[in-house]
Amino acid sequence: MSDHVYKKIELTGSSTRSIDDAISTAIAKASTTLRNLHWFEVTETRGQIEDGKVAYWQVTLKVGLRID
Amino acid sequence: MSDHVYKKIELTGSSTRSIDDAISTAIAKASTTLRNLHWFEVTETRGQIEDGKVAYWQVTLKVGLRID
Amino acid sequence: MSDHVYKKIELTGSSTRSIDDAISTAIAKASTTLRNLHWFEVTETRGQIEDGKVAYWQVTLKVGLRID
Amino acid sequence: MSDHVYKKIELTGSSTRSIDDAISTAIAKASTTLRNLHWFEVTETRGQIEDGKVAYWQVTLKVGLRID
Amino acid sequence: MSDHVYKKIELTGSSTRSIDDAISTAIAKASTTLRNLHWFEVTETRGQIEDGKVAYWQVTLKVGLRID
Amino acid sequence: MSDHVYKKIELTGSSTRSIDDAISTAIAKASTTLRNLHWFEVTETRGQIEDGKVAYWQVTLKVGLRID
Amino acid sequence: MSDHVYKKIELTGSSTRSIDDAISTAIAKASTTLRNLHWFEVTETRGQIEDGKVAYWQVTLKVGLRID
Amino acid sequence: MSDHVYKKIELTGSSTRSIDDAISTAIAKASTTLRNLHWFEVTETRGQIEDGKVAYWQVTLKVGLRID
Amino acid sequence: MSDHVYKKIELTGSSTRSIDDAISTAIAKASTTLRNLHWFEVTETRGQIEDGKVAYWQVTLKVGLRID
Amino acid sequence: MSDHVYKKIELTGSSTRSIDDAISTAIAKASTTLRNLHWFEVTETRGQIEDGKVAYWQVTLKVGLRID
Amino acid sequence: MSDHVYKKIELTGSSTRSIDDAISTAIAKASTTLRNLHWFEVTETRGQIEDGKVAYWQVTLKVGLRID
Amino acid sequence: MSDHVYKKIELTGSSTRSIDDAISTAIAKASTTLRNLHWFEVTETRGQIEDGKVAYWQVTLKVGLRID
Repeated sequence: MSDHVYKKIELTGSSTRSIDDAISTAIAKASTTLRNLHWFEVTETRGQIEDGKVAYWQVTLKVGLRID
Repeated sequence: MSDHVYKKIELTGSSTRSIDDAISTAIAKASTTLRNLHWFEVTETRGQIEDGKVAYWQVTLKVGLRID
Repeated sequence: MSDHVYKKIELTGSSTRSIDDAISTAIAKASTTLRNLHWFEVTETRGQIEDGKVAYWQVTLKVGLRID
Repeated sequence: MSDHVYKKIELTGSSTRSIDDAISTAIAKASTTLRNLHWFEVTETRGQIEDGKVAYWQVTLKVGLRID
Repeated sequence: MSDHVYKKIELTGSSTRSIDDAISTAIAKASTTLRNLHWFEVTETRGQIEDGKVAYWQVTLKVGLRID
Repeated sequence: MSDHVYKKIELTGSSTRSIDDAISTAIAKASTTLRNLHWFEVTETRGQIEDGKVAYWQVTLKVGLRID
Repeated sequence: MSDHVYKKIELTGSSTRSIDDAISTAIAKASTTLRNLHWFEVTETRGQIEDGKVAYWQVTLKVGLRID
Repeated sequence: MSDHVYKKIELTGSSTRSIDDAISTAIAKASTTLRNLHWFEVTETRGQIEDGKVAYWQVTLKVGLRID
Repeated sequence: MSDHVYKKIELTGSSTRSIDDAISTAIAKASTTLRNLHWFEVTETRGQIEDGKVAYWQVTLKVGLRID
Repeated sequence: MSDHVYKKIELTGSSTRSIDDAISTAIAKASTTLRNLHWFEVTETRGQIEDGKVAYWQVTLKVGLRID
Repeated sequence: MSDHVYKKIELTGSSTRSIDDAISTAIAKASTTLRNLHWFEVTETRGQIEDGKVAYWQVTLKVGLRID
Repeated sequence: MSDHVYKKIELTGSSTRSIDDAISTAIAKASTTLRNLHWFEVTETRGQIEDGKVAYWQVTLKVGLRID
């Protein structure tokens, strides 16, 4: 990391399966248009409830990408 | 959501299996006595340790419910 | 807990599998050298990204241990 | 306040008009079923967007009520 | 705690004597109508001043109670 | 929201009239170049003072937009 | 701002009308005795409730003033 | 409080006896030169240690005073 | 303090008597094995409830010690 | 600032020399592709360690730019 | 510090040279009119940008002074 | 980092020269007794004042070290 500049963007991914999957979904989506994704940091974990169950998980994360 | 008022309550669920399951447990329990649960936000993730393992996971969440 | 003093230490565990596994890894490692681990609190969830996927999860937690 | 105990509840009100009106809506609704509301503290201000405009404002507040 | 769900409520107690007494007052009051109070966490310590002295102490705490 | 990924951007709008108007200004401006704006969250409220009056209000908000 | 030192003071203004008016009240009052007020930052929004309505709004702000 | 403006100042009091006494000391001192002190909020509790004991307690508080 | 390095450790003390006593207990315990304790900062105040009373107080503090 | 809208982006710069230089590096890099950069706010200061020395400094900052 | 009361004031200093210099500037300025300055705590680091460079650094700090 | 566990310790370094030097001092000191220091995060920047000047800078940082 010693001679690069990084940008952090903030994304919210969702999944009907799990917290981990919501994160993976956001990263997979971002990587289709952005290159050089390096790390992420979770900033918020939420979800929607239907019929007494978690209908889907929503996780917000900051993603760091190197700008060349 | 445009013409409703929501109340947020704070719950702690626990599970011997996973973070996600502790959340689901809290929501399932709450839904037996409360109607109109809409969303949740995780505020704290903790757990108890026994014999070098996570004995159970404890997750605190705020749950939003519509009050009619 | 009524007549003990506890110390909290801060650890970061990692895992290629899941958030829950990164926590378990940190606790298993700590328990090989420290006795009387009682509870943990998650303070940060991060990870490294490679090829549009989470390469490994990194979770920081505070672990409380009783000092006799 | 010297010899009372107060309870704080957390509410989210919404309004198509303004931040102030979303707060008033939450308080008016709460006062139909709860007595002795004394004060409030705003904890979050959000809103929904439609067609480049604020469709409705959503304000979360803690409301303090005296329990006799 | 392994198979229970807990609810946290937020209370403000007051006392003309001390911080500790304001906490005890809130808990004593809550326990007259609520069962299964387990723990508390202090979130705010305030007070009112009269004639250059603390007239009464006001302490806000979250109280965890088991919901069966 | 179940199968989308959202991006949050941070904007500061200003207005000589009111807090609400500074928010509307930022959203109106953003919507001229960005599609699919869904919600906002206020993160900071400031302003400039001239002659003992608020000369203009400055409100910072995070805006969530769906990325298809 | 390049060669000045600023002091921040913290004020709470109140108004029976609106959040914006409570801010303006605090600034107008401060400007009667202090010169060179430049900017403000809102740190807390509260209010008192009477008869199911907001009786008055109370807004705390930090005000920056240049000290020559 | 409806038609006043308040100023908050930040003080640190100390005491060799207790947390409560450190607060009272700060307020007593402030009231010798300032009028109209109304309330306080504790923002930090610290202390100095000597010979395995608390040598003195240091409590920082914000004090609200009415400016007429 | 000008030419030393300090380490901060985090401890939780408990007491059946008071907040102040829980702090003193943690410091007394730490000083039996650690030298050069200088100061502490309270980070959390909690407690356990039994029969509508505080059964014991639990206070978490960071303790600064000089490392020579 | 009265009739503009600003966007804040988050960058991490690094430098082998100093905190200040890591900030300047991030800003210089950003200004090669972005116009109208106005101000920055530091949100995190970190670094990497090698051989008991700071190998490089990493500073994260939010940068405000006017969008015309 | 055992038998004194301290006041904290909040200042913003600026400098075209460095973060450290902006702090020194604020303290030098404050010491021309205030006696007994003891310590400071940095609360915010910002700056203005011109032509892809830091035009000046702005650092906000709380300064503790003894009131006799 | 993929298959290691890290521990974070918290240190305060001081220097009469600069913020950067206070950090370097803490790290140099820690590295005389601890191996495998990897990174640091600044958590607090303070200092002592004498004669209207910064007498020494005190910076608190968390240092991450690999535990094998």
